[in-house]
Amino acid sequence: MILPIFLMFSFLLSSSSCNALDFCVADLKTPQGLAGYSCKKLELVTVDDFIFSGLHAGNTSNLIKAAVTPAFTAQFPGVNGLGISIARLDLAVGGVVPMHTDSSEIIIVIQGIIDAGFISSANKVYFKTLKTGDIMVFPQGLLHFQINAGTTPALAYVSFSSPSPGVQILDFALFGNDLPSNIIEETTFLDDAQVKKLKGVLGGTG
Amino acid sequence: MILPIFLMFSFLLSSSSCNALDFCVADLKTPQGLAGYSCKKLELVTVDDFIFSGLHAGNTSNLIKAAVTPAFTAQFPGVNGLGISIARLDLAVGGVVPMHTDSSEIIIVIQGIIDAGFISSANKVYFKTLKTGDIMVFPQGLLHFQINAGTTPALAYVSFSSPSPGVQILDFALFGNDLPSNIIEETTFLDDAQVKKLKGVLGGTG
Amino acid sequence: MILPIFLMFSFLLSSSSCNALDFCVADLKTPQGLAGYSCKKLELVTVDDFIFSGLHAGNTSNLIKAAVTPAFTAQFPGVNGLGISIARLDLAVGGVVPMHTDSSEIIIVIQGIIDAGFISSANKVYFKTLKTGDIMVFPQGLLHFQINAGTTPALAYVSFSSPSPGVQILDFALFGNDLPSNIIEETTFLDDAQVKKLKGVLGGTG
Amino acid sequence: MILPIFLMFSFLLSSSSCNALDFCVADLKTPQGLAGYSCKKLELVTVDDFIFSGLHAGNTSNLIKAAVTPAFTAQFPGVNGLGISIARLDLAVGGVVPMHTDSSEIIIVIQGIIDAGFISSANKVYFKTLKTGDIMVFPQGLLHFQINAGTTPALAYVSFSSPSPGVQILDFALFGNDLPSNIIEETTFLDDAQVKKLKGVLGGTG
Amino acid sequence: MILPIFLMFSFLLSSSSCNALDFCVADLKTPQGLAGYSCKKLELVTVDDFIFSGLHAGNTSNLIKAAVTPAFTAQFPGVNGLGISIARLDLAVGGVVPMHTDSSEIIIVIQGIIDAGFISSANKVYFKTLKTGDIMVFPQGLLHFQINAGTTPALAYVSFSSPSPGVQILDFALFGNDLPSNIIEETTFLDDAQVKKLKGVLGGTG
Amino acid sequence: MILPIFLMFSFLLSSSSCNALDFCVADLKTPQGLAGYSCKKLELVTVDDFIFSGLHAGNTSNLIKAAVTPAFTAQFPGVNGLGISIARLDLAVGGVVPMHTDSSEIIIVIQGIIDAGFISSANKVYFKTLKTGDIMVFPQGLLHFQINAGTTPALAYVSFSSPSPGVQILDFALFGNDLPSNIIEETTFLDDAQVKKLKGVLGGTG
Repeated sequence: MILPIFLMFSFLLSSSSCNALDFCVADLKTPQGLAGYSCKKLELVTVDDFIFSGLHAGNTSNLIKAAVTPAFTAQFPGVNGLGISIARLDLAVGGVVPMHTDSSEIIIVIQGIIDAGFISSANKVYFKTLKTGDIMVFPQGLLHFQINAGTTPALAYVSFSSPSPGVQILDFALFGNDLPSNIIEETTFLDDAQVKKLKGVLGGTG
Repeated sequence: MILPIFLMFSFLLSSSSCNALDFCVADLKTPQGLAGYSCKKLELVTVDDFIFSGLHAGNTSNLIKAAVTPAFTAQFPGVNGLGISIARLDLAVGGVVPMHTDSSEIIIVIQGIIDAGFISSANKVYFKTLKTGDIMVFPQGLLHFQINAGTTPALAYVSFSSPSPGVQILDFALFGNDLPSNIIEETTFLDDAQVKKLKGVLGGTG
Repeated sequence: MILPIFLMFSFLLSSSSCNALDFCVADLKTPQGLAGYSCKKLELVTVDDFIFSGLHAGNTSNLIKAAVTPAFTAQFPGVNGLGISIARLDLAVGGVVPMHTDSSEIIIVIQGIIDAGFISSANKVYFKTLKTGDIMVFPQGLLHFQINAGTTPALAYVSFSSPSPGVQILDFALFGNDLPSNIIEETTFLDDAQVKKLKGVLGGTG
Repeated sequence: MILPIFLMFSFLLSSSSCNALDFCVADLKTPQGLAGYSCKKLELVTVDDFIFSGLHAGNTSNLIKAAVTPAFTAQFPGVNGLGISIARLDLAVGGVVPMHTDSSEIIIVIQGIIDAGFISSANKVYFKTLKTGDIMVFPQGLLHFQINAGTTPALAYVSFSSPSPGVQILDFALFGNDLPSNIIEETTFLDDAQVKKLKGVLGGTG
Repeated sequence: MILPIFLMFSFLLSSSSCNALDFCVADLKTPQGLAGYSCKKLELVTVDDFIFSGLHAGNTSNLIKAAVTPAFTAQFPGVNGLGISIARLDLAVGGVVPMHTDSSEIIIVIQGIIDAGFISSANKVYFKTLKTGDIMVFPQGLLHFQINAGTTPALAYVSFSSPSPGVQILDFALFGNDLPSNIIEETTFLDDAQVKKLKGVLGGTG
Repeated sequence: MILPIFLMFSFLLSSSSCNALDFCVADLKTPQGLAGYSCKKLELVTVDDFIFSGLHAGNTSNLIKAAVTPAFTAQFPGVNGLGISIARLDLAVGGVVPMHTDSSEIIIVIQGIIDAGFISSANKVYFKTLKTGDIMVFPQGLLHFQINAGTTPALAYVSFSSPSPGVQILDFALFGNDLPSNIIEETTFLDDAQVKKLKGVLGGTG
């Protein structure tokens, strides 16, 4: 095959003006839109926008003996609009990720063993102990949880089907704000003493 | 279960920075994007952004003896991006919502009886009289209509599968603008006298 | 304009073979797919597939003094795939729709007054009393509730941004199945006595 | 670079079992689902499923002096699920594609000149004469039309943003079925004589 | 039917404020968002935003003896958000559109004959000669190509299922930038001499 | 708060019939549809459908000294329709995942160091060395690769934004099937000797 020397003029020109949207690194200073942030200008984007080195071990010296370290759009603007994100999960012995909801989520256990489960809207429980190397998927929007089921610290990575999964943690939602106690009691059937005890622990008022 | 007092430090920190997009109350002053408006800043959002009290009875003293009062994004910015909106429909005796198209739509009849129908792209008519309490769904993009079929005023609520359903009313589209009469006649087979008569009523020119 | 008599042969032919998918009335006997059910054959579809007359007042003689009567795909196959559905909500005096999550939802209050609210994933409470005629929107996936705030029965209609919103009721998910008590306690910080009391009320085991 | 001879065993194995869905040639005998037809078995798919040779000149000896020859899913199963389809448009002198709605559509004029336009839901007319080589885009769901504006036959190709665009032709929808004349008149303000004249031409009853 | 003279006041008012998003002509000066550009203000939009007259014959005096002239969002802002775009393809004798990937694409051959094909992720080749009038669909994301297979220039139009299809041309991606030669060789198994020869032709460095 | 004993009758009834689609475990025996497989019957679904224990170390004794072990729909039916999947990547010393395209993808390096990069459709290279603990995101549809850059085996997990990412490996697509050599040469500018050499290695014919 012979390769002529003259350039692919018109083709290159039309190609360079085509302005496709391969990716959209979030410009976190722009107003957020429905589908995420506006895109950082292409000429400012570098390879470092697509790399994140901050998934370090979290501090598990807390109430839940657990730490979730996210790489969501706010921490890792390169995932904006790409339909995926990831987080690191550290669970000390006795550590728990309390009941929560978010997007679809896959956990992979790197160290230790973890009890994990979710509850369907048909009210069935899907619950099992995961060994190192196992993965489990939690369908979007359903209540689920993870618990260190072993005698050593556990480490896992959790992938999400959204670059900004809206994680809602049940206890924070119920007891960590100013939702009036009587409303909580009427809508959850919990006893007043129970509600007030947990408001005390989680900093809620009202 | 024992509740230690020390706070959930690292977990709260990572959670508070997660910046998820639960909702996106429209900032109506921003340029509109493909997926709707940009989001009002979260610190400015209040419960009143999610509530609308303006679905009052409309004035039906008009040509069609009907009034449609919308709660779309422009009136009710809280629905921006949520895939749903609602409107109130008042039909005086003899009132009509003329042939129109929009997103998918469910009507629920609160008072009176209403003749409603749509026409499929396979050209079949789905048409019936709805009693108080009945609902009917109109699939998106198909011509449909509602008529007060009773001897008392009718009231209905209409839900849409879009926060900004693009309602196109056939008679306005044909006769309420400057589309030249000969073009209307060629593309609809209507007679010239008919076209000019309706242009007169609906304010069209040309 | 002159209308010639010969038929629009080729046009009609191509049109009748175009087989567009205006709607897809659910054939509830088919295996359910990701996007809903398969479509009932077009020749079997009638106007009654698009109409539902079953939104009658529900029986509120129950624990929550409330009844939710749905018109989802399972009850109203005409909404399959149309991105919308509706339900009737009856709240006796003292009636409550307990904390739950689902798709985006708009409530319109037809009779009475209703306390309604939701909690964002940023853990802020959006809560207010709705008067007759008011609407409120609850963004998808967030915990929310409704309570009869008056001294008379309340009636409302609730529209959803999905034909099969996956309603997950918190108390049923926690206490109405076989999720082991110790797991509930570890993941919610509730006391053992509280968990067992509610399991007793809601029929849970374990 | 040296190329060792031993095979890429495990990699090939995992790859061959990955079962991705590059395309989904419609199996027209399956029940249609919300997102289109089920897929023809991969081992039965040939290159001919992706090629269509039937876009011949249509017969324009009809009322509208026009012929639309589609390559939609029903004619060209290879486009199933790919978000695109195409049709050929022949317009004899005086030929018209009457007012209609469908998905988004781009026309390219290959021969002749064509008057084309659409009307927005804000009721503004976008209307102009297209010369050979011009393209025009018609946004989805809006009423639009094309007319041979010249003294020779016109030829165009029309691309759609859907593999099965639901083309709804206004005159057929109004006058080509059993929609009762009084309903048409109430919902369009057309005169009874006009409605009955067009029902006569287009084969409508009632 | 009698047409009263008084205007459709409340109806017109609510309609004119409904602010639906029929289309979104790209304002190319705004920052690009995930779903495309922000919308040009409606009062500035004219019919010319929906028409493009620039699909002229491209200059094929280049290496590939081919020219692709696009009407994507950057050239034709009216398609922004409408899920469709188009390009003109000129192939001189011997002309080639090299291996590339993009969105789903339909080609229609207007003049000449064209060899076209694509390769599935299951690694099967779908390849055939297209005659004038034939169409072929290339599913999104798969490597494909077109070659003038005749002895006269060929002309085709190509429709895309995206307003900004991200066309990635294999040879430019491999040999037209600063990707280090050893990386190319390790990830493609090409010989060093081959890589360097093509870098020379296509302007690559490293 | 007093808990009456009578059951939540009507509410439970309507809830149990609501038939929402929380998840859709693939029934791999059904014909595949556009959006994936049909759903396994709910009564047959168990927790094991959501867990996968098969992400073992792959055999890297092959040409590329690498093994990709997938948990896609075909291996892990629980992810069907959930917009996410995962794979394990083992790279021996010198191991390479050759140039390929697929859905959006995040890699997390568990052991070793990996050179990784992608090329945009604007033809810019984004390339860097990842250390243990680093993550990188590869936007969908763009050519990318991974290479063991260290002196010890590397281990990584790779998450995808699709349950069945259509992985297309460049070398297999070009040289591992019956695509004629002259077509490859015309569309890639590769030399005949190079093409034939790689066809020999990868089992291609023609």
